[in-house]
Amino acid sequence: MNAATPDGAATVTDLSRLSLNTATTKALTLAEAVDVAAEAGLGAVGLWRDRVAEAGLENAATIVADAGLRVSSLCRGGFLTAADESGQSEALGDNRVAIVEAATLGTSELVMVVGGLPAATTPGGPALPDGDKDIVAARTRVANRIAELAPFAAEHGVRLVLEPLHPIFAADRAVLSTLGQCLDLAAEFPPEQVGVVVDTYHVWWDPTLREQIARAGREGRIASYQVCDWILPLAADPLLSRGFMGDGYIDFPTITRWVHEAGYAGDVEVEIFNQEIWDAPGAETVATMAERYSRLVQPYL
Amino acid sequence: MNAATPDGAATVTDLSRLSLNTATTKALTLAEAVDVAAEAGLGAVGLWRDRVAEAGLENAATIVADAGLRVSSLCRGGFLTAADESGQSEALGDNRVAIVEAATLGTSELVMVVGGLPAATTPGGPALPDGDKDIVAARTRVANRIAELAPFAAEHGVRLVLEPLHPIFAADRAVLSTLGQCLDLAAEFPPEQVGVVVDTYHVWWDPTLREQIARAGREGRIASYQVCDWILPLAADPLLSRGFMGDGYIDFPTITRWVHEAGYAGDVEVEIFNQEIWDAPGAETVATMAERYSRLVQPYL
Repeated sequence: MNAATPDGAATVTDLSRLSLNTATTKALTLAEAVDVAAEAGLGAVGLWRDRVAEAGLENAATIVADAGLRVSSLCRGGFLTAADESGQSEALGDNRVAIVEAATLGTSELVMVVGGLPAATTPGGPALPDGDKDIVAARTRVANRIAELAPFAAEHGVRLVLEPLHPIFAADRAVLSTLGQCLDLAAEFPPEQVGVVVDTYHVWWDPTLREQIARAGREGRIASYQVCDWILPLAADPLLSRGFMGDGYIDFPTITRWVHEAGYAGDVEVEIFNQEIWDAPGAETVATMAERYSRLVQPYL
Repeated sequence: MNAATPDGAATVTDLSRLSLNTATTKALTLAEAVDVAAEAGLGAVGLWRDRVAEAGLENAATIVADAGLRVSSLCRGGFLTAADESGQSEALGDNRVAIVEAATLGTSELVMVVGGLPAATTPGGPALPDGDKDIVAARTRVANRIAELAPFAAEHGVRLVLEPLHPIFAADRAVLSTLGQCLDLAAEFPPEQVGVVVDTYHVWWDPTLREQIARAGREGRIASYQVCDWILPLAADPLLSRGFMGDGYIDFPTITRWVHEAGYAGDVEVEIFNQEIWDAPGAETVATMAERYSRLVQPYL
C-alpha cells in the first residue's frame, strides 16, 4: 500500500499488522469501516459492540471474514464495580453476552474497561455527595467479578483483557490505572484467560512502563497493543482528547521498541476518540493513520 | 474556633494543624491571606513565591511571624527538565533563589514541581511537532539537577520536596507522577535534604498509595500533606479543576489514616486552584475549608 506522507512523497509500507478500531471512524457503519480498512491494506479491525449490534452479530462476523480481515479485539466488556447485588448480576449478564459475541466474531480478546467508583453516576459528571468513594473496595469487587467470568470466557476461547485507563478516568471509568496493577490482578489466572492491553494513551506516563511491559511479555499476557497520542489542550470532554500518533507528547518509537522486545507479535490497533477526526472522511483518517504508523510505529515493531 | 457546618450547627475543632495555601485565596495579598488564616484559628500558611515577591521577602516573613503562624511550605521550585545548558543554568539559579527565600521565610520545605517534556512550550498547550518527547531522559535530568541543588539547600536548612503530579500533567508540568517514583529518586539523598509531598489531588488514584505513604513515613520523607478534591467535570483549564474536600471523588478519611499511620505530625495544607473559589470572599473560603477539614480530615489525623 502506498501511504502518502504529508509532503506528497510515497513509501511502501507493510500494514499487515495495523488494525482500525471502529471507534476511530465513528461515523462509519461496520461494513464501511471494514471497507476502508481493507482497501487501505490493513490486516485487521477492532470492533466496538455498538457497531456489531447495528450490523447484527452473525452478519458482522461474515462481513469481516469476507473482507479477509482479522478481528483484533472486541471492545468492550467491564463495568464491574457495582456494590449492590442487582448491579453485579446485571454486569455479569452483560459480560457473558460480550464473551459470546467475541467468540462468534472470531476474536479471542475481549477488552475490559472495569468501571469507576459507585459515587459516579455519570461518566465525566460530579460525584454523589455521600456516594461510595472506597476505591480499594471497588478494586476488590473487580477482581471478584473477573474470577466469576474467567471460567465462562475460557469455555468460549475468549480472554478477558484488562485495560489500565489513564488516572484521569479513575473516578468514573476504571479503577485499574496501571499495567502493573492489572498484571497483579491477572496473576491469579492462566494467561490465556486474563490478559492486558498496552494502550499508549493510558500508560505512556508510567515510570515503571518499561519493566511492566517486559513483565507482561514474560507472563504471556499482552493481548493487544493500541496506539494514539496524548494531545493538549485537553478537549472539553477529556474522553475525546486523543490524537494521531505524532500530534502529541508520546514517544512511540521507544514504547513500540519495548513492546517488541517483550515479544509481542500481534496486531497494532489505532483507537482514537476525537470529534475532529470523526468529522473527517473515513478513508482520509485511515490514510493518516497508516502514514503515522509507517513512520512512528512499524519501524520499531 | 467554631466551624459552622452547612446546617448551621457549630462544632469546636482543633485547627492548629490546618494551613491555608495562598493559592487557595488567590485574590488576596499575602497580608490579607495571613489575616483570614489567623482569624479563623489556623496554625500555618503555605506561601507561593508570587505573593511573597509582592510583599517583599523580609516583610513577608515579618507578617507571618507577627500573626503567630508557621510557614508550612514555600511553593515552588522546580522546572528542571531543560535539555540545553542555558535552560539548565537558569533553572539552577532560580531554584537557588527559592531556597534562600524558603530559609528567610522560616520554612524548611520547598515544594518542587519538576517540569514537563521539552516538547511542551506552554503548559497546557500543544507539543512541538518535532520536540523532545523522551520522558526517560527528562527524568534523569531532574535527578541530576536535584543532586546539584541538594547541597546548597542543605546549607540553608531547606529540604527539596518532590511533588508527584497527577499523570494528567506529565507532559507539560511534571515528569514525576507517583510517590514511589519520587521516593526512588529521593533515596540517593538524606531525608533532611530531599522529601516528598502527599497531595491527595495528585495521588489518590495510585494503586500502591498505601504502601508508598507507609514507605515515605518509614524513610522520614513526608514533608507535607496537602488536601483538595478531584472534581468532575474537569474545568476547561484542568489545572483549575480542584475542589473542597468532600465535593469530589477522594476518600479523605482513608488516605488521612494512612498518612497518620505513617507517623506524619505536621501541617495539613489546603491548596485549591478553582476560579469559583477564587471569586469568593477569602473568609468564606477559609470557613468552608475549616468545616470540611474538621469533618473529613482532622478526625483521622
